Amino acid sequence: MNVIKVSSDSRTSAVAGAIAGVIREHNRAEVQAIGAGAVNQAVKAVAIARGYLQEDGLDVVSIPEFTTVDIDGKERTAIKLVVVPR
Amino acid sequence: MNVIKVSSDSRTSAVAGAIAGVIREHNRAEVQAIGAGAVNQAVKAVAIARGYLQEDGLDVVSIPEFTTVDIDGKERTAIKLVVVPR
Repeated sequence: MNVIKVSSDSRTSAVAGAIAGVIREHNRAEVQAIGAGAVNQAVKAVAIARGYLQEDGLDVVSIPEFTTVDIDGKERTAIKLVVVPR
Repeated sequence: MNVIKVSSDSRTSAVAGAIAGVIREHNRAEVQAIGAGAVNQAVKAVAIARGYLQEDGLDVVSIPEFTTVDIDGKERTAIKLVVVPR
């Protein structure tokens, strides 16, 4: 499944739309963020996506996990938010 | 119920311990953060608390919401993470 990568510059409404679209199609979305600014945008996007999906009768929650990603050959710790229906 | 307030200086393991304690007692915890640094610490704390609580057989998820708080007479938008068993 595709991972939705979020940066500190990401627009929350655009990320929220992507999350809602992936949930509607796959019933699960993964959002990945590295650094405080990106994590903040990711969390706000999930809050907005919850609103979008509630209109469809879907009540989603997020499960935060640590994950390790390779950025230009260096290991970085990222936050992964797994978004699934409650 | 008490709200666990997190700042960018909060130690994630201490916040995680507080979340786990409130969940064990009340089956629900609310974590509040204002600003990217604080939200990042809050999300990491929830990820760590998930590990603590899994040892007790509890699988918790977080529900991010926007909320408005009064800081020195000014309205600020905060992120509230509601942590509940799945």
